Amino acid sequence: MTVKIAINGYGTIGKRIADAILKQDDMELVGVTKFTPDYTVMLATQKGIPVYTEESRVEDFKKKGYEIAGTLNELFENVDLVIDASPGKVGAKNKEIYEKYGLKAIFQGGEKEKVAEASFSSLCNYEDGLGKKYLRVVSCNTTALCRLLCTLRKNFAIGRVRATLVRRAADPREYKKGPINAILLKPVKLPSHHGPDVQSVIGKDLDIVTTAVVAPTTIMHTHILNIELKDQVSVDDIIDVLKKEPRIMLVNSEKHGIVSTSQVIELGRDLGRPRYDLYENIVWEDSISIVNGELWLTQAVHQEAIVVPENIDAVRAIMELERNPAKSIEKTNKSLGIMGGI
Amino acid sequence: MTVKIAINGYGTIGKRIADAILKQDDMELVGVTKFTPDYTVMLATQKGIPVYTEESRVEDFKKKGYEIAGTLNELFENVDLVIDASPGKVGAKNKEIYEKYGLKAIFQGGEKEKVAEASFSSLCNYEDGLGKKYLRVVSCNTTALCRLLCTLRKNFAIGRVRATLVRRAADPREYKKGPINAILLKPVKLPSHHGPDVQSVIGKDLDIVTTAVVAPTTIMHTHILNIELKDQVSVDDIIDVLKKEPRIMLVNSEKHGIVSTSQVIELGRDLGRPRYDLYENIVWEDSISIVNGELWLTQAVHQEAIVVPENIDAVRAIMELERNPAKSIEKTNKSLGIMGGI
Repeated sequence: MTVKIAINGYGTIGKRIADAILKQDDMELVGVTKFTPDYTVMLATQKGIPVYTEESRVEDFKKKGYEIAGTLNELFENVDLVIDASPGKVGAKNKEIYEKYGLKAIFQGGEKEKVAEASFSSLCNYEDGLGKKYLRVVSCNTTALCRLLCTLRKNFAIGRVRATLVRRAADPREYKKGPINAILLKPVKLPSHHGPDVQSVIGKDLDIVTTAVVAPTTIMHTHILNIELKDQVSVDDIIDVLKKEPRIMLVNSEKHGIVSTSQVIELGRDLGRPRYDLYENIVWEDSISIVNGELWLTQAVHQEAIVVPENIDAVRAIMELERNPAKSIEKTNKSLGIMGGI
Repeated sequence: MTVKIAINGYGTIGKRIADAILKQDDMELVGVTKFTPDYTVMLATQKGIPVYTEESRVEDFKKKGYEIAGTLNELFENVDLVIDASPGKVGAKNKEIYEKYGLKAIFQGGEKEKVAEASFSSLCNYEDGLGKKYLRVVSCNTTALCRLLCTLRKNFAIGRVRATLVRRAADPREYKKGPINAILLKPVKLPSHHGPDVQSVIGKDLDIVTTAVVAPTTIMHTHILNIELKDQVSVDDIIDVLKKEPRIMLVNSEKHGIVSTSQVIELGRDLGRPRYDLYENIVWEDSISIVNGELWLTQAVHQEAIVVPENIDAVRAIMELERNPAKSIEKTNKSLGIMGGI
């Protein structure tokens, strides 16, 4: 069976999911929607991706020389599933349209939890996505936290989780956002929403409290984690477990000379990744330490890319293309070149 | 009694301590040392601060038109106390010179703990400085942590302290340092040295573990603190205690519209502070929250200025000009305009 998919929104996340779908043999990308006529329409057309827009905008696109395959209605009539990659909070409004067409939909983490029947993170709760009508793939930060915590929880008993997120201020292409030379408290009132968001996937029995600030960088989020270990565990035990999970890539400051997010991105470029995308959690192997039964580690998160494999898995779950989580994850990993190491 | 003081090193910290000493009626600034001839020599001379340098450099300074009062030997022969404000680790080498002249000395936090008989932070252990030969005023980050924790400990029983420091990458005048667009792990291996450094002041019975990253900003450090409360305490109790401590300034995102370090610095400029220096811990009143007996809060630290009042107090302690901590602190506060509020 091949699922017919529309991607609603062809921005930072949408264009990456589109490219990933083109690499899947069980999915067909019927089209993407675009509301602003810019160069990405041309590139999509060159890749053979049909671009649809609102009826009122068709003329504008054509005037600028862009090829339009049809209107939103025409697209939504011809698909089984919509992946909503519109800006945060817009997805909830779009849901009315999907309901009208009787379409299943996958939303992104910018939407509230209640937009969907379940919040989804492949390594944690693939099964919760099976056969649902609406799923929500959690945000980049939450995805990274969920992946790491579920990988640890499968192997060790963990207690209290405390995490501080140093968030990137803007994506590379964004030129209007700040700050340039400041640390921004976001939120001011602690803790941050990421803790409850992780709980939306893992469950409220996980004792997690998170805090977050925004730093003047465009390339990656950075997380500092403090995790209570309930078992006698060594640093090597932790490293062994993380090494075995392909969606987590370990880097080492001594062996690889990587001590900053800018070098991680250079690694993505040197690996020949499309748009230098790093789908993996990047965990510093030599950040890992255990002090009085508390695990400490630092990870970096490529905000533009990390949710892409999760969206592909979410398609397989919601459409029941694959009921076995491990098989979907492996298929996705293989298609995107996620191999768990440099 | 008036103490005759030399400041060895007239950089970021030295020039600020010099200005602060000029405001004290129990201290005399005999001179400062300078090793690079630049505009700050001229400004010092204009303020009536004699500038000394190494014998071999006197000609170079004179050639560039700068007034030199004499050589290091001539300065050190005429003072009771040296405040060492040289770059980190250089102070330890300078100590041999101070020993030769039989001088008392105050070192900065860039030196190792063992350089001095005690590590000093006014609100924590003023008494430990009394009559010592060598004292070390802890670093900007450690000073901020000590102030906050000692203020809390005087009023509440606290347990586990976990803190993440988002450090500024460079001072405003530094143009060679990075990163510009990256988060730098410093250290990579967790935890950071700040925890043990706080213990050097407060004692090893304090359970504190700290982590730190460097962000591309020049103006302030930012600390996110997680402190276990052993008593039943409310957010208002915490605010009341912090409000009463002049070296802690509370800002509020709603009342003052301050949500970032850049706005805090703008406040310093609007307050008419010299060089916009903020000597206080800047704590966001509305960051303070208590979740399951854990206190969370965010503070910002002006790295160039925060240790200045502590150096002034350290002079009074080491020279026994004042045996009562509260009296020295009040005198220093008054002289520098530290009033605990906007």
